[in-house]
Amino acid sequence: MRERDEEKASDISLRDLSERLNEFAKARDWEKFHSPRNLLLAMVGEVGELSEIFQWRGEVERGLPDWEDSDKEHLGEELSDVLLYLIRLADICGIDLGIAAVNKLFKNAVKYPPPPPPPSSAG
Amino acid sequence: MRERDEEKASDISLRDLSERLNEFAKARDWEKFHSPRNLLLAMVGEVGELSEIFQWRGEVERGLPDWEDSDKEHLGEELSDVLLYLIRLADICGIDLGIAAVNKLFKNAVKYPPPPPPPSSAG
Amino acid sequence: MRERDEEKASDISLRDLSERLNEFAKARDWEKFHSPRNLLLAMVGEVGELSEIFQWRGEVERGLPDWEDSDKEHLGEELSDVLLYLIRLADICGIDLGIAAVNKLFKNAVKYPPPPPPPSSAG
Amino acid sequence: MRERDEEKASDISLRDLSERLNEFAKARDWEKFHSPRNLLLAMVGEVGELSEIFQWRGEVERGLPDWEDSDKEHLGEELSDVLLYLIRLADICGIDLGIAAVNKLFKNAVKYPPPPPPPSSAG
Repeated sequence: MRERDEEKASDISLRDLSERLNEFAKARDWEKFHSPRNLLLAMVGEVGELSEIFQWRGEVERGLPDWEDSDKEHLGEELSDVLLYLIRLADICGIDLGIAAVNKLFKNAVKYPPPPPPPSSAG
Repeated sequence: MRERDEEKASDISLRDLSERLNEFAKARDWEKFHSPRNLLLAMVGEVGELSEIFQWRGEVERGLPDWEDSDKEHLGEELSDVLLYLIRLADICGIDLGIAAVNKLFKNAVKYPPPPPPPSSAG
Repeated sequence: MRERDEEKASDISLRDLSERLNEFAKARDWEKFHSPRNLLLAMVGEVGELSEIFQWRGEVERGLPDWEDSDKEHLGEELSDVLLYLIRLADICGIDLGIAAVNKLFKNAVKYPPPPPPPSSAG
Repeated sequence: MRERDEEKASDISLRDLSERLNEFAKARDWEKFHSPRNLLLAMVGEVGELSEIFQWRGEVERGLPDWEDSDKEHLGEELSDVLLYLIRLADICGIDLGIAAVNKLFKNAVKYPPPPPPPSSAG
């Protein structure tokens, strides 16, 4: 991708991805395969592939400092596969995933309130 | 949410969610728990909760026509939990999930080219 | 396998499988890879492969009446992979899986008592 | 359990567990729920609960030296839940899991032959 396209992709919205997946399925006549439980199992399959990347590595450091570029690229693909099936599953179930996610963030913020700031040293 | 906020949430970007998750973890001093494999296992836990919603239902129709509102809301929450851990996992690994997802869509489009259009009846 | 060996394999115990896995790992010097979380993620990977077998099939009938023999064999392999990692994980954690499973069956029987028999027609 | 019962449970066979699960389902009229994909998703749900036990712990040592007894008991239950659904799934699919597992062990032994023994020092 060119730099400007990368910038745009980096900021892509859930809705935009959902629409692209919808067009993708339509153009290939794959909508008939996209029932909720089919998509859920397909997503579980991708979660398995994602786990395989991490399975024999022991603890992994943030930022993956020792990973080969090809391993990082593979990781990006498996993360994407999980994401794309998840977005498609939500869409097929009639759930707006963006609204659901923002609601969940609000709910989590209420459930786990941040700790109060430490007392000021001027106190 | 008010209508305008809903509109905005519906179109939220992966990067925006990623930033919110980062602030959330920072404010609670949870960054120390967010190693790649911890987050991956937390995501697998949420995939399990998502699967539980579907486990005894047999085949489920698109749009979930017979589901209670409370079940749909629960579904939205579990889909969100998977999404939020997935986004956080990508971020902690240093992967730009938006770029990775758009790249994967391109790759899929090449791997599975759409069928040619049917011959025009005007032949 | 010959018939007598099949009979024996069909009745194999969890402990016997656990011991074979232990010897297998020892002979290959693989014990160093078999930490609890490595094995758990390897098992999740196999659960993914198992799910892939079922992902595009819609509802599947018991006994898999329409499946090819090769698909059934593949299924048996993936079920086994999940089983073998599960047994190995239990062993490495120091959990006796046979005892745990029998205890869980007792617990389930208490939690879900069977319904009373229907009244006798002889009243 | 008394010691003798524990000894017996520790050596329980896959077939014995499968028969107990069959009776359990029959006595509760639960067979109607036990379709292959329902059981598979139920198993994925239990894999999720198992993963939750390990999710925030970082790397875990073999034998779980620092775990509370209650955590080990919980782990035994979740391992069992995965096992019981896996055995039930195999049974409902008409797969003999013992035979399949022994076959898989043979196949793995061929695929990954053990290294030759080191040369004798008497050599």
